[in-house]
Amino acid sequence: MNGGVLAISLGDPAGIGPEIIAEAWAYRKQLDLPPFMVVGGQHVLTSAAASRDIDLPVATISAPQDAESAFPHALPVLDMGGDGTWWPGKPTTQGAELALGSLELAVSLALTGSASGMVTAPVSKSHLADIGFAFPGQTEFIAHSSGIEEEDAVMMLAGPSLRAVPLTIHCALSDVSSLLTQELILRRCRVIHRAMQRDFGLERPRLALAGLNPHAGEKGRMGHEEEEIIAPAIAQLRDEGIDATGPHPADTMFAPHKRDTYDVAVAMYHDQALVPLKALDFDQGVNMTLGLPIVRTSPDHGTAFDIAGKGLAKPDSLIAAIRMASEAAAHRAASA
Amino acid sequence: MNGGVLAISLGDPAGIGPEIIAEAWAYRKQLDLPPFMVVGGQHVLTSAAASRDIDLPVATISAPQDAESAFPHALPVLDMGGDGTWWPGKPTTQGAELALGSLELAVSLALTGSASGMVTAPVSKSHLADIGFAFPGQTEFIAHSSGIEEEDAVMMLAGPSLRAVPLTIHCALSDVSSLLTQELILRRCRVIHRAMQRDFGLERPRLALAGLNPHAGEKGRMGHEEEEIIAPAIAQLRDEGIDATGPHPADTMFAPHKRDTYDVAVAMYHDQALVPLKALDFDQGVNMTLGLPIVRTSPDHGTAFDIAGKGLAKPDSLIAAIRMASEAAAHRAASA
Repeated sequence: MNGGVLAISLGDPAGIGPEIIAEAWAYRKQLDLPPFMVVGGQHVLTSAAASRDIDLPVATISAPQDAESAFPHALPVLDMGGDGTWWPGKPTTQGAELALGSLELAVSLALTGSASGMVTAPVSKSHLADIGFAFPGQTEFIAHSSGIEEEDAVMMLAGPSLRAVPLTIHCALSDVSSLLTQELILRRCRVIHRAMQRDFGLERPRLALAGLNPHAGEKGRMGHEEEEIIAPAIAQLRDEGIDATGPHPADTMFAPHKRDTYDVAVAMYHDQALVPLKALDFDQGVNMTLGLPIVRTSPDHGTAFDIAGKGLAKPDSLIAAIRMASEAAAHRAASA
Repeated sequence: MNGGVLAISLGDPAGIGPEIIAEAWAYRKQLDLPPFMVVGGQHVLTSAAASRDIDLPVATISAPQDAESAFPHALPVLDMGGDGTWWPGKPTTQGAELALGSLELAVSLALTGSASGMVTAPVSKSHLADIGFAFPGQTEFIAHSSGIEEEDAVMMLAGPSLRAVPLTIHCALSDVSSLLTQELILRRCRVIHRAMQRDFGLERPRLALAGLNPHAGEKGRMGHEEEEIIAPAIAQLRDEGIDATGPHPADTMFAPHKRDTYDVAVAMYHDQALVPLKALDFDQGVNMTLGLPIVRTSPDHGTAFDIAGKGLAKPDSLIAAIRMASEAAAHRAASA
């Protein structure tokens, strides 16, 4: 189980995924990257590499276990029995089908232990929807495929300076208060706690929960969610033995000296987590899904069709995602 | 007019104000600080300095114009006809009266041009309220004393990495949407625009307005404030010749490469401005009040009674506030 290398899904072939995968492989020695294979898309990868003047030998493999020995000399690409065309910046139906096939196979490799974990390159949600993909995004599909309820698949953003989880995500700011419940906080924080132990090897992870309102509400002067929802949830978590603190005023908790006092910041809404993460660690942010039976990370950016094929896309976030997935897989293997 | 030095109000004598003022003066040569005088509190300043082993000669002056020549050799303190006692960490009614007297005199020095501008050390709002101070904070008092409506006195936070203005401030997060109007945005952005010209010498300042919702609402998918309120206000500002852009997704606009594209970020709520500011520039944040007839800055921290007198308080923010006030005063003088 989990004896293999990481599986990287190709992402939309018209996006920046293929070229940054090629870049990452090219940096494998310099950055001492763990071995990985790409699921499908050998022609796309070769073309994308050529556009960036990357010398990319590809090893087309038919079995995942052949990836590790191939990796030092060539990018291992698992043959999916078909291939795609590289039209950078011009997403197509065929491209969406290739992206979906790659995603599906990568998930099953990770679930069966033929891969140690998976890293997903960015897809186009609208083009996936066009071919009948019934999930809002890759995360929901992976959760479903893994038999995990969507509520228990928790998005974390992480960079060198900060790990942060937004408890509510893609909703209007004025809906945050009504979506925030003790149940939500408890459920997600339990997932976060276990994931910090399992994937990061932290025996007693420290969770710092932000307040919702300015100055964490100042004892109810500016909002009551802290007193009515967040603080009672924290008390319950502590009763369960989880080292949860807060609610902390959001404006100070991301300051350098405060970041040293916790392992993960739990934010109440999207921008409360993503503003500091991207201000501090823009190029190296990683999106990790906590709570899955498999390890899954992805770079913290989209397909970036506007710059695909132009030699501008940076591989930093993908490289950080590969590293984080590899480390999480190692932590899981060590405790298995 | 404005030929004098900066006036620093003492702040609450039991807070960290006096000791960081002493520290700032001690660094005057090393950091090439502009000259300043303190309004009142010579005994408090001397005691606070002694507690940090700072050699602080004080020049008690009776006229503001004597400050500049005294400054290189001693900290000029304008005699207020009384003095205070130093009880670090133990705020008193007498201390609040000293703080208020200092604030009142500093404002009038700035308004009459006997000082080039003012820097306010932190006060205790609750202790000021106890002695009948009828304003929520120093800013509202200064606005009132200057004949400016509170709505036109705009708080900006600034550090080496970022200038940011929150359009709504001390309200519950769930009230932000209802407080956000086109009128508010227009009024405040006009003040910001003029202040960037007058106080920072920017001929055509670039204002970047954040969206309210995640991803700036994604065309109404997550909230409508961008389409209904923010975008029309930006269009109006542009019609007036103001270089306003947005609404920008908040999570990316504070990333390093985005910060280079504007002079000031206009945030929709407190934490949207203060989270990135304090994550990036915690120790060097400055609070500046835009829209006043006088220059006014303050350090971006409170009285910190818990560490007063313990030698722990950093003078960085006060020093940055002194520099910013001095530069703003110079810009005003140059264009007067």
